[in-house]
Amino acid sequence: MNNILRRGRLNKDDPNVLSYLSSMDTDRHIFTADLLVDTAHVIMLAETGTISRDECTHILKGLETIKGGGYDKLDTSYEDIHISIEAKLIEIVGEETGGRMHSARSRNDEVTTCIRLVLRNELLTLLHKLITLRKNMLEIAVENKETLMPGFTHLQHAQPTTLGHHLLAHHDALARDCQRVLGAYIRTNKSPLGSAAFASTGFEIDRERTRELLGFHGLVENSMDAVSTRDFVVESISVFANIMTNLSRLAEEMILWSCEEFGLVELDDSYASTSSIMPQKKNPDTAELMRAKTGTVDGCLMSVLAITKALPMSYNRDLQEVTTHLWRAAAITLGTVNIASGIISTMKINEDKLSLSANTGFSTATELADTIVRTTGLPFRTAHQIVGTMAQGNIHTLEELDRIGMKIIGKKLSDEGLDEELFKGALDIKENVNRRSTVGGPAPLEVSRMINDRNYLLVQEIDTLMEHVNNVQDGMKRLDDVKQSYL
Amino acid sequence: MNNILRRGRLNKDDPNVLSYLSSMDTDRHIFTADLLVDTAHVIMLAETGTISRDECTHILKGLETIKGGGYDKLDTSYEDIHISIEAKLIEIVGEETGGRMHSARSRNDEVTTCIRLVLRNELLTLLHKLITLRKNMLEIAVENKETLMPGFTHLQHAQPTTLGHHLLAHHDALARDCQRVLGAYIRTNKSPLGSAAFASTGFEIDRERTRELLGFHGLVENSMDAVSTRDFVVESISVFANIMTNLSRLAEEMILWSCEEFGLVELDDSYASTSSIMPQKKNPDTAELMRAKTGTVDGCLMSVLAITKALPMSYNRDLQEVTTHLWRAAAITLGTVNIASGIISTMKINEDKLSLSANTGFSTATELADTIVRTTGLPFRTAHQIVGTMAQGNIHTLEELDRIGMKIIGKKLSDEGLDEELFKGALDIKENVNRRSTVGGPAPLEVSRMINDRNYLLVQEIDTLMEHVNNVQDGMKRLDDVKQSYL
Amino acid sequence: MNNILRRGRLNKDDPNVLSYLSSMDTDRHIFTADLLVDTAHVIMLAETGTISRDECTHILKGLETIKGGGYDKLDTSYEDIHISIEAKLIEIVGEETGGRMHSARSRNDEVTTCIRLVLRNELLTLLHKLITLRKNMLEIAVENKETLMPGFTHLQHAQPTTLGHHLLAHHDALARDCQRVLGAYIRTNKSPLGSAAFASTGFEIDRERTRELLGFHGLVENSMDAVSTRDFVVESISVFANIMTNLSRLAEEMILWSCEEFGLVELDDSYASTSSIMPQKKNPDTAELMRAKTGTVDGCLMSVLAITKALPMSYNRDLQEVTTHLWRAAAITLGTVNIASGIISTMKINEDKLSLSANTGFSTATELADTIVRTTGLPFRTAHQIVGTMAQGNIHTLEELDRIGMKIIGKKLSDEGLDEELFKGALDIKENVNRRSTVGGPAPLEVSRMINDRNYLLVQEIDTLMEHVNNVQDGMKRLDDVKQSYL
Amino acid sequence: MNNILRRGRLNKDDPNVLSYLSSMDTDRHIFTADLLVDTAHVIMLAETGTISRDECTHILKGLETIKGGGYDKLDTSYEDIHISIEAKLIEIVGEETGGRMHSARSRNDEVTTCIRLVLRNELLTLLHKLITLRKNMLEIAVENKETLMPGFTHLQHAQPTTLGHHLLAHHDALARDCQRVLGAYIRTNKSPLGSAAFASTGFEIDRERTRELLGFHGLVENSMDAVSTRDFVVESISVFANIMTNLSRLAEEMILWSCEEFGLVELDDSYASTSSIMPQKKNPDTAELMRAKTGTVDGCLMSVLAITKALPMSYNRDLQEVTTHLWRAAAITLGTVNIASGIISTMKINEDKLSLSANTGFSTATELADTIVRTTGLPFRTAHQIVGTMAQGNIHTLEELDRIGMKIIGKKLSDEGLDEELFKGALDIKENVNRRSTVGGPAPLEVSRMINDRNYLLVQEIDTLMEHVNNVQDGMKRLDDVKQSYL
Repeated sequence: MNNILRRGRLNKDDPNVLSYLSSMDTDRHIFTADLLVDTAHVIMLAETGTISRDECTHILKGLETIKGGGYDKLDTSYEDIHISIEAKLIEIVGEETGGRMHSARSRNDEVTTCIRLVLRNELLTLLHKLITLRKNMLEIAVENKETLMPGFTHLQHAQPTTLGHHLLAHHDALARDCQRVLGAYIRTNKSPLGSAAFASTGFEIDRERTRELLGFHGLVENSMDAVSTRDFVVESISVFANIMTNLSRLAEEMILWSCEEFGLVELDDSYASTSSIMPQKKNPDTAELMRAKTGTVDGCLMSVLAITKALPMSYNRDLQEVTTHLWRAAAITLGTVNIASGIISTMKINEDKLSLSANTGFSTATELADTIVRTTGLPFRTAHQIVGTMAQGNIHTLEELDRIGMKIIGKKLSDEGLDEELFKGALDIKENVNRRSTVGGPAPLEVSRMINDRNYLLVQEIDTLMEHVNNVQDGMKRLDDVKQSYL
Repeated sequence: MNNILRRGRLNKDDPNVLSYLSSMDTDRHIFTADLLVDTAHVIMLAETGTISRDECTHILKGLETIKGGGYDKLDTSYEDIHISIEAKLIEIVGEETGGRMHSARSRNDEVTTCIRLVLRNELLTLLHKLITLRKNMLEIAVENKETLMPGFTHLQHAQPTTLGHHLLAHHDALARDCQRVLGAYIRTNKSPLGSAAFASTGFEIDRERTRELLGFHGLVENSMDAVSTRDFVVESISVFANIMTNLSRLAEEMILWSCEEFGLVELDDSYASTSSIMPQKKNPDTAELMRAKTGTVDGCLMSVLAITKALPMSYNRDLQEVTTHLWRAAAITLGTVNIASGIISTMKINEDKLSLSANTGFSTATELADTIVRTTGLPFRTAHQIVGTMAQGNIHTLEELDRIGMKIIGKKLSDEGLDEELFKGALDIKENVNRRSTVGGPAPLEVSRMINDRNYLLVQEIDTLMEHVNNVQDGMKRLDDVKQSYL
Repeated sequence: MNNILRRGRLNKDDPNVLSYLSSMDTDRHIFTADLLVDTAHVIMLAETGTISRDECTHILKGLETIKGGGYDKLDTSYEDIHISIEAKLIEIVGEETGGRMHSARSRNDEVTTCIRLVLRNELLTLLHKLITLRKNMLEIAVENKETLMPGFTHLQHAQPTTLGHHLLAHHDALARDCQRVLGAYIRTNKSPLGSAAFASTGFEIDRERTRELLGFHGLVENSMDAVSTRDFVVESISVFANIMTNLSRLAEEMILWSCEEFGLVELDDSYASTSSIMPQKKNPDTAELMRAKTGTVDGCLMSVLAITKALPMSYNRDLQEVTTHLWRAAAITLGTVNIASGIISTMKINEDKLSLSANTGFSTATELADTIVRTTGLPFRTAHQIVGTMAQGNIHTLEELDRIGMKIIGKKLSDEGLDEELFKGALDIKENVNRRSTVGGPAPLEVSRMINDRNYLLVQEIDTLMEHVNNVQDGMKRLDDVKQSYL
Repeated sequence: MNNILRRGRLNKDDPNVLSYLSSMDTDRHIFTADLLVDTAHVIMLAETGTISRDECTHILKGLETIKGGGYDKLDTSYEDIHISIEAKLIEIVGEETGGRMHSARSRNDEVTTCIRLVLRNELLTLLHKLITLRKNMLEIAVENKETLMPGFTHLQHAQPTTLGHHLLAHHDALARDCQRVLGAYIRTNKSPLGSAAFASTGFEIDRERTRELLGFHGLVENSMDAVSTRDFVVESISVFANIMTNLSRLAEEMILWSCEEFGLVELDDSYASTSSIMPQKKNPDTAELMRAKTGTVDGCLMSVLAITKALPMSYNRDLQEVTTHLWRAAAITLGTVNIASGIISTMKINEDKLSLSANTGFSTATELADTIVRTTGLPFRTAHQIVGTMAQGNIHTLEELDRIGMKIIGKKLSDEGLDEELFKGALDIKENVNRRSTVGGPAPLEVSRMINDRNYLLVQEIDTLMEHVNNVQDGMKRLDDVKQSYL
């Protein structure tokens, strides 16, 4: 009978051709999912009368045996896992029964159902890990809401800020990533099963029933669309690429901040490699790989876009090549979120160096100009010109400012309302940060408020995540219960 | 005063350097948006007392003059449009007043606010055009719900289907694209204004007020995140790439279907170029360019990912290079949706050829096997083997099937329940399609149901779109009203 | 002693971190190469007196043992293969001797030497396979130099040509690919060994000697450049992408030509999958995967470009991530050239259908217009207008042409020199092709000439290839001889 | 007559369709080239008797008029520049003569000939600019062959080197880029003219003659290949991407080195933007854009690969979309090489900071361990362990080393041959660099040698470049001479 499964398949005599075509290795990712799909499909076939209850029981028992043996017991000389499992089943329960499992479906709807089942879990796991990372960030942010540091534009010191405010910027980017993961999840968690080759089937099947048993939220209704589309893969990898880009920016900062010249943080030994000869040298290898693997995920996205471009309907073998990129991108993204959590949770923050660094570079110049505008009523551009002139020299006193004021506008600023206290305050980096208490600013009070808000929102996001997790688990439980009733 | 704006900027003596750095050409896209941002910002400055009512009025009048002159009246030797407009303003109203406009902000928050304003509109326009395209598709689908055609897998005839069912597959993919456009819109339509260079400002500003005046739905709160992130650009171009991929598949079918060998449709003269010497030859140039421009959008996405990878916080000049890719990708996607609408609305459908073609290739074999399973109770794989044997010859009669049945399983299928009527029905392509009436299948009744459902949903989607459009317009109206109260 | 190799390396307690960082799996590709590098390096150390002859002998014996055990005997808990082999060596010969192998080098120069050794072989193998493919193409071209077929532009019939001429177009593209492979080979086959971490070494080493022993053609001289650059990887994958693009065009034609509508060729069973139920249906799976895998190689290129962008000197861990993409792209390209050879060598050419198809679509119109220009002296555009008018109807006779001529230019073309024979000749597709005998044209005589020229050039190219292969083998032989003298 | 050129073209009534299809804007790049192609083609037609000498003269005069008017005088409502020029010609010289220009060719061979003509010049210009940049680098390298600086791995101080050695690493990468530009040039500088639509022509044309008149080095012989291939575009943009990647690494270093923390160099005011308020702050905008534009070129490459993937023979309209990416990538690469030259030629090198920085981080540890190996005969790994132990403390004396030696191996190193002078020498960064005098190392003498060699090679490369430039100019001169003989 296995001959039937092989017959008409490609020439097995040429191992090069077989290995060029086979997806068995990549299919390792969907072994468990394929058995779930088989189980739900077979139960539905029994319930709708296409196969008998006994046949169903025999098939389910056969599938249990296959599940017990695991992927490694399969015959990998078949071109894909679906055929390999079916062949194994027929070997176990015979053709008369096993030959009925594939009724009313095709590998085309089977494989995309499997991909959606696995990807669904990857997305929920990713969401969970992103939330964990964000919690870690919020914790470090709250501890460092008063830790002064230089804020950079163009990698140049621009204005002082706090580490708490800086970390919150990364957090907020990841919060948007979580929304995008959810969007991808919702469009992934739909059942294409029952679409068969692309034209559905004349059998009396119940697509709603398999959907329910597999815990999907809805159907990919049109049967041609269901087997042809991989837009949920493009969307998911796009979301991964956005996450990786955000994390690569964090990684770049870890690399910069931990180099000798910056010295703002020190990575923990678990996330850096030290040379056996230079123990003081710590190479930020994990952060470098976070950065590099971003390029790998970008390449996965590009591959999938190039592969799916201009494919006519419906199923084409090209789609097989898409899946490898999906699993690779998902695994890298999950791994990178983990590493990011580890790095920031364990890094040592050099508060002294941060604060010292924040004080260099006359980074308070902007605030001084703003203070002049507020106290003297001079236009912004004029105030800028005056402060700019002072910045060219090294004397940063009110007297000097008055001297420059006389020269440029014929007035002393101290006569216009800028007193010594206001002047000193503008030059003090701590005071400087405190003044930036507008919504979203670095002032510790405002950062505190933002952290509280975000912690509150995180709880809601965890609820949403748990709801999705529970729905999936309920489906799995239901499927298992029904299966047990047959065994 | 303009010297202040120029001073410290890059060497204007070397036109190569200036042209390498300048964004003036690309900034044409944000000319109008920049004036809106200026207007809202200046009104807020007046309301919060940073500038006087009179100063506000003068500035607003100056901005009206600039608006009236249009982009082409600007001095393009400045490195960007923000500085160019400010210089023009100072030229018109003087430094004492014009020099106050840029208080409490920076080009960093200004430019990303402009990008979001323009992109927001592009996304809503795109949504509108996609909905129009989908309506066109549903109309053609309903007219062709009984138009038989071959369904392809691997570009080989597999099973008969209908043009209505086929078009619905494209429609449903675009429906998901619409959801993704909405997701991108929601994350784009947020105000970063007030974040200044990245550290917010010590001025008493009101970010909520500028948000409201510009019709944004919320804030990009953290001021460092607000100026640093371009993840909404990555998301938008990802969405464009998904749309283009879906449309490239349609384009490929137009190219194939209109070639001499297929002959299933004929493109309208407006969308094909004919040779002056061979009028019967119609080159599907528009469809070819739809296909090609998909690659261009993919490249835009890749560029933006490569540019934003590993940038440390906060603003870096690299971000300037991102924007060009955004406008290019948006324009191409909008144009392509338009062309797609035009092509399918005007194409001539060769029903005879479609139906004739559906009948070739024994594409009813699957249904015959399924019928055998359903009527005789044979396992699926066994039925397949029998039909497969018949397919190798050219005789497609019940007698022949019986002969093969005897040989393979020792039974005549006509003895097992397969009568002549059932046999004929299985081989009839119309009957064949009618039987596939399960959810999502090609049976005309089911296709009708799906089209009705989708038309109903489209109405709701249009409501959602209109709500967003109205919110934006309300903001614009509000801003204009307040502005008029100053003029 | 192994502790020394591990100490300072990353935390082995967290398997996630280790697996994130480890390159052991990818390093499988360079196992043999690494032993060659070790061997050449150790011999040079002995020759220059850094280690003793006895020490050299012991180390070489240890390396033989490791080679005998194969990759699978290595301890894969080390982060890379270099450390793993060194640890194994120390285990075998002791630290006092084994601890000397890594003198005067670093993993930085070691790994890039290994990559170049393996890539060099991949490039030569690829060149060999491309030459084989081209030979196959030329053979089929010569057999089909008179096989008429339609020539397509925009996938529309344009003018008749021959299959020989068509295949030659593919051949010539691959001939340029071979030149590019050679260019990449020349820039790859250089030795970076001796550059150590990036700053070379204070030991008295002999870079020329290791170069010679490893069969490299020259040095990557500057020691910082030597360990930092991966431009040879970018170049190689670019070359692969160009090859894949060329082959994807061939694949697309195989898919189109073998579909029911075209029917121009039939793929051999070894390269197509047939359905068990529809034996007449042959899915061109191999060609579809050729097409899809082109996208994978494009993604590899994009990944490598994104990873290496903006890396400061010298070695960064990011470079580790580059290598995986190189091996993947190389393996796919090699496999695809193989498949392409197989497909075209075994496909069945439907000469009747090709010829029949060439006759449809009035594809001789261009030649008719050209004939009018040549015989009557009318301008090209005028002749086009006349033939275009005739093409709108179905009557293709000289009388009809005269009628149209009278209408448009007031003259009968038969009065101007166009006799019946010339007219008939213009409309005959065989004659039509014969007339296009200009350099590069499809006339059988010209195609014959081109094939002869190319066969002649192929012999020279094979000589060049063999020269490179021999140089490499000479190096390997030399290394082995010297090694044997120590054992 | 223009109607003929328009008739059958796309519907001009819908400006959206026209603008979607038109290449007129991009064709600005090939205006001059198209006139050259017209000129050479028309002269050849006269020489081979297809048109008369008088007709040729009239056409050439018409083309001179068009050339004089420039691109801006063309009617841009035509879909491409070829048709627009032909229409203009017919307007000037009448249909009877002008209608003959397009004999024996097609826009398919015309456009690719134009692209090759322009690209050829871009490649030679690029080669010239790269050579200039390399000369600048060698000059600065020679001045700084003794300028000590820290050498980095993983952005951590690893070992001391010199700025001269470092710049030479960049130079050598660009030298390979020059080789690749030459390779692309050689494959670009070939004539496809005479291939017509793809099937060559029945006219008696002389492809060798037009090749010679246009200064091409050879033919793209097979007429189908000639119009279908864009592999020379893929190759050229791949070469651009490699150059940009190399330059992005230099740009990254400029950004890092000029930030406050590093302070190794200061960019000249012409290449940095300073803030009007913080004149001490210099933003490295040019370097940031060099880095960003690398991503743009990568995207261009990706677009071209995605567009040309899986296109069947021969010409498809998709190819039009390719060209825009080519011109964009070429212009960016040329501009970036210019900017790089300017940046490094004008930057101020902070020698004191470089040297000071080279002394930090115990970066001499590796040399100390090597010295121990060389003087005492200890194995490398053991010496590493001893130095590593010393590095954990702050005492770097021979006594301390002896103490550690006793502890680890029970011996004082000073008893084994390591005297005070050798010890001190190992820790001295200048001495340290001097010792690394092996081929490719940083020792000033070796760097001097390398610079001399490279200057010598540059002269040869300039000769090669001039030879190619002269060949092109000879062709242009020949064409002009022949043209003048007709006018």
